[in-house]
Amino acid sequence: MHSIKLTLAYDGTAYAGWQVQPDRTTVQGVLETAIERITGEASRTLASGRTDAGVHALGQVVGFRTESQLSPEILVRALNAELPRDVAVLDAARVADDFHPIRDSLSKRYRYVIHDGPVRDVFNRHYAWQVKQPLDAQAMRRAAAGLLGRHDFSSFESAGAPRQDSIRTITDFQVARNGAGQGGRNHTISIEVEADGFLYNMVRAIVGTLVEVGRGVQNESWPSEAMTAEDRGKAGPTAPPQGLFLVSVDYGQTE
Amino acid sequence: MHSIKLTLAYDGTAYAGWQVQPDRTTVQGVLETAIERITGEASRTLASGRTDAGVHALGQVVGFRTESQLSPEILVRALNAELPRDVAVLDAARVADDFHPIRDSLSKRYRYVIHDGPVRDVFNRHYAWQVKQPLDAQAMRRAAAGLLGRHDFSSFESAGAPRQDSIRTITDFQVARNGAGQGGRNHTISIEVEADGFLYNMVRAIVGTLVEVGRGVQNESWPSEAMTAEDRGKAGPTAPPQGLFLVSVDYGQTE
Repeated sequence: MHSIKLTLAYDGTAYAGWQVQPDRTTVQGVLETAIERITGEASRTLASGRTDAGVHALGQVVGFRTESQLSPEILVRALNAELPRDVAVLDAARVADDFHPIRDSLSKRYRYVIHDGPVRDVFNRHYAWQVKQPLDAQAMRRAAAGLLGRHDFSSFESAGAPRQDSIRTITDFQVARNGAGQGGRNHTISIEVEADGFLYNMVRAIVGTLVEVGRGVQNESWPSEAMTAEDRGKAGPTAPPQGLFLVSVDYGQTE
Repeated sequence: MHSIKLTLAYDGTAYAGWQVQPDRTTVQGVLETAIERITGEASRTLASGRTDAGVHALGQVVGFRTESQLSPEILVRALNAELPRDVAVLDAARVADDFHPIRDSLSKRYRYVIHDGPVRDVFNRHYAWQVKQPLDAQAMRRAAAGLLGRHDFSSFESAGAPRQDSIRTITDFQVARNGAGQGGRNHTISIEVEADGFLYNMVRAIVGTLVEVGRGVQNESWPSEAMTAEDRGKAGPTAPPQGLFLVSVDYGQTE
């Protein structure tokens, strides 16, 4: 028995999220089916974190244990041949027997994409939060800077997923307009945030809060004030799932 | 009765192309339904050119005649409210009564996107030709340069759509790797070509020919030699539709 670490990309549009659920199509479900077809054994996989329905991944990390002697290269090719077209294994590696995708992660990076043009972007309807009102991305960037560092983020934590504590450290926070979209106009705001860990729905709650600043409904200091209140009711709404991408998970040296 | 010029974006994935066909969902069909709901009159629309099933548009131009007195701004909003989420009107303008989207166009620009990474890009499965073998984009760029200018392009014309002549002028041809894709790797080649007009399937036939060069199967001078032969059988295969985007159509000053 040895441990394999997979790096996975998926388009979350068609899935009821990462985690296996009865009678629902989930990313974990299709992955475990593919592993079983290839190795002949049922394996339980563990991801660095669950993603909700509609949330995407550019570099989700998943661990599982297997008796299979297939090389990592063969495993990547065989899994990609079995998996549906909206899930892909980018990399496989043998890792230490005690590798644990959640406990061992040092940091994670998420991206959230907002489209704020007057007309919907037909190509990003599943990959961005489309807000018709133009947003002040500079104000959002300044507001985001106030959340950098080590804080209690319980104001940005959805109920239903209790953690030991709600202290996390945001090490990087980028808010930028980028790319030329449909019709050559630039209506895309890309938000990237890196932290040593995230509470449930934390990125989406922070984005929903920053968008209130971008709309001019709240001022730039409001997000950090809402954070200090340690009360979910003081911050903004939770942004919808389809704009969210798990970009990468960092483990330092695991291979 | 007056003439309206619409600029349209659409994701062609779900459509049997632009043109109305019995018992098929087409972009023209959903647009004409939306126009009729808003104006109360059945209007026939005319596009700058038909796009095939699976082909996308960032800036298709469509004309129609109407008695409606709705302002262009109201028309854009009303049409977008009626249209499915994968079609959007970017702009509407009143134009001269005799505006003709095909005859009056001075030039058109297309983009073709290729993904040449070892693992499929799950987010571009409907928006790129995914080729597993790495391509030599520099060789493709040099080969493309040999097609610039005024030539007989019958070697790149699919049968079934006779034109008066097959002489066209390519005024711009760009082949570039760009963007950082899934996993931060750059496996995207973007090809842009502008001409005073295009023969049926011309961009896709040229791309299929350039990819033979990119694979190293043919040398860089082969595409222009194939062109000179004026024989479809001498050039490469037709690239698949999902990588193709109609970017824009230029009419000079029409408004």
